[in-house]
Amino acid sequence: METVSSGVTAAKGFTAAGIACGMKGSGKKDLALIFSEGPCVCAGLFTKNRVQAAPVKISRGRVERGLAQAIVANSGNANCCTGKRGLNDALRMAKLAAGALGVKEELVLVASTGIIGRPLPIQKIERAIPDLKKRLSTGGSREAAQAIMTTDTKVKEIAVRFELGDKKITIGGIAKGAGMISPDLATLLVFLTTDAAISREALKRSLASSVTESFNRITVDGDMSTNDMLMALANGKAENQKIEYKGYGYAKFSEALEFVCLELAHSIVEDGEGATKFVEVQVEGANSEGDADRVARRLANSPLVKTALFGCDPNWGRIAAAVGSSGVAFGEEDLNIYYGEVQVVKNGSAQPVSKSRLNKLLKGANVKIGVDLKQGKGTARIFTCDLSDKYVRINRGYGRSN
Amino acid sequence: METVSSGVTAAKGFTAAGIACGMKGSGKKDLALIFSEGPCVCAGLFTKNRVQAAPVKISRGRVERGLAQAIVANSGNANCCTGKRGLNDALRMAKLAAGALGVKEELVLVASTGIIGRPLPIQKIERAIPDLKKRLSTGGSREAAQAIMTTDTKVKEIAVRFELGDKKITIGGIAKGAGMISPDLATLLVFLTTDAAISREALKRSLASSVTESFNRITVDGDMSTNDMLMALANGKAENQKIEYKGYGYAKFSEALEFVCLELAHSIVEDGEGATKFVEVQVEGANSEGDADRVARRLANSPLVKTALFGCDPNWGRIAAAVGSSGVAFGEEDLNIYYGEVQVVKNGSAQPVSKSRLNKLLKGANVKIGVDLKQGKGTARIFTCDLSDKYVRINRGYGRSN
Repeated sequence: METVSSGVTAAKGFTAAGIACGMKGSGKKDLALIFSEGPCVCAGLFTKNRVQAAPVKISRGRVERGLAQAIVANSGNANCCTGKRGLNDALRMAKLAAGALGVKEELVLVASTGIIGRPLPIQKIERAIPDLKKRLSTGGSREAAQAIMTTDTKVKEIAVRFELGDKKITIGGIAKGAGMISPDLATLLVFLTTDAAISREALKRSLASSVTESFNRITVDGDMSTNDMLMALANGKAENQKIEYKGYGYAKFSEALEFVCLELAHSIVEDGEGATKFVEVQVEGANSEGDADRVARRLANSPLVKTALFGCDPNWGRIAAAVGSSGVAFGEEDLNIYYGEVQVVKNGSAQPVSKSRLNKLLKGANVKIGVDLKQGKGTARIFTCDLSDKYVRINRGYGRSN
Repeated sequence: METVSSGVTAAKGFTAAGIACGMKGSGKKDLALIFSEGPCVCAGLFTKNRVQAAPVKISRGRVERGLAQAIVANSGNANCCTGKRGLNDALRMAKLAAGALGVKEELVLVASTGIIGRPLPIQKIERAIPDLKKRLSTGGSREAAQAIMTTDTKVKEIAVRFELGDKKITIGGIAKGAGMISPDLATLLVFLTTDAAISREALKRSLASSVTESFNRITVDGDMSTNDMLMALANGKAENQKIEYKGYGYAKFSEALEFVCLELAHSIVEDGEGATKFVEVQVEGANSEGDADRVARRLANSPLVKTALFGCDPNWGRIAAAVGSSGVAFGEEDLNIYYGEVQVVKNGSAQPVSKSRLNKLLKGANVKIGVDLKQGKGTARIFTCDLSDKYVRINRGYGRSN
């Protein structure tokens, strides 16, 4: 398996484009299109939030039918809490793209991210669709990735290629995510394309397990926003022997897909709003994986732990307090805490560690926090970032300055 | 019932003092003493954190025995994760106070707040105890309240007086709390005194129900820090007919105690780290009180909702997303959201509201967020504050600058 360029257009038969249709006040790109020259098997994962944006409702139904050929997505407006009009606007957005592309309306998936509660300016989209279609190219991944960004500061795209028999299969993707600091509300959009010939069942299963090991590790799953969605398109242009669930090539395909998802998930954490650090939380010795996961998420979401990390402050007392309040049972005398390889709490008591050594560890851009509860074999790993004053500055006025 | 001055020394027979013993690098007051001239019935509530500070362990046991006469408390050091030495230090701290006061060691309760994981500088306490004892006075409430502050910016004390038959009963208290923004980790200390004659059972029950309606409404309970404690002392000097659980005077006493607790709880929220607003979250129409509580806490703890409040940004989309991700079931078309009296979401759809009207509402120091789910009769109210960049500045280096 090798990394290749061109993200979501790296796989055969895919083109993409991104332009500014005027939805963002800043004049930045805000409308993206991804297109496959033939129909694709598709799979997707959607927000579990009780409040769901109109495009989520439309795309979920279409993905369930299992076939798609294009994705049209906008940033700057979430088309959420917009009632019947919102649903009509999402349908219209797909229809406009279908008309320009000359494909059936039902084969177009639709996504939105941005401010909640404002009507989608569908006229701006309508005026821009012909230009957007004209710009479609095999080099268009980057601009499509730019067009779905909101508070992201970096473009997120990746692609990999691997051999299966005598064929080469490519999987690529683009993503946007405003960061991990508040995974419950930051919208995540992920669009994946592959030229693999793969059954719908196999694509669905492979996508679900890849997400468990990647995007779900950044705590997105349980608390998705109103607009979160991951969608994968597979057009079969690699002409490989069709991959079936657990059949020939499935493991190799899944390995590559998981790598793509993990890279995109990491890039989301690294670009977390105001983030200055990439933080890995590793919990061991819990009574179950569920317990370990609960402790890890508790730590990863604690504002006090996150602000201490921002300040490069080896204040592990906050870690101890967060672990102790996670609701998971353990004996205080079994608590062990590590920064990287350095143990700071052993059997519930502070260890004598040179502060300069800890400060040095914490000044790095990557920090690892380890917790061992000595209760059992449950482990969990969560990726997160720190909490800076920049996070607050970004979020206090998002609605005004977008 | 009337409000009176002198906080924790307003009730008959109580004196207090606070001094600087050198535990805080800043040289500010860090050692407090509260003393009753006779033994008191006592009751207390302690952190449920799995990791508990040494003074919590000592005081919990003593409160269970039901009698106490003094409280000695320090700030600047939490005496937590300090192993056997920590327990010995907490015992020693109580013993030193007992010796100076001439009371039995078991009648002294002990509390600490500050940095976790550092040995308590017991020699500093030992040297300071004689002076502390000498300073005890009926005017000492304020300095005692100052001596338990950490990142608090305001002294928190209150007292009330009411008549019961031909007697006057006074209840007073002091509190410290670094704020609501991270109730899971900010230590809360509350010391209450009363001259009421009351049975231990009645004091315990009255305290528990008062806390449910006050400190628990600021989400402290479920996720207490390693050091949280509330302790109440009743010395009987008012010479009223002894109050029994649900007997004569119990309702009146409980009403006054609840008022004291609610005032102190509010003052903690208002002085939340970096807080610029006092926020009331009122949820109605949930299927149960539990559901309503879950939604209200979700809202009150959402960093995105809190940063929007800081920015006076009427971004109710974040409220909708937080409510929808709380795990509580409701139909999207039944969601109603209010800022104060102004409805911004009706039946799941945005309402046309003038932005200037909302901006004006949100610029106030008090903001009320209302949510109605139209499912049932469950209601819940939670008090919280906003999340500012000052919060991050305070917390990134607490361990360094305390």
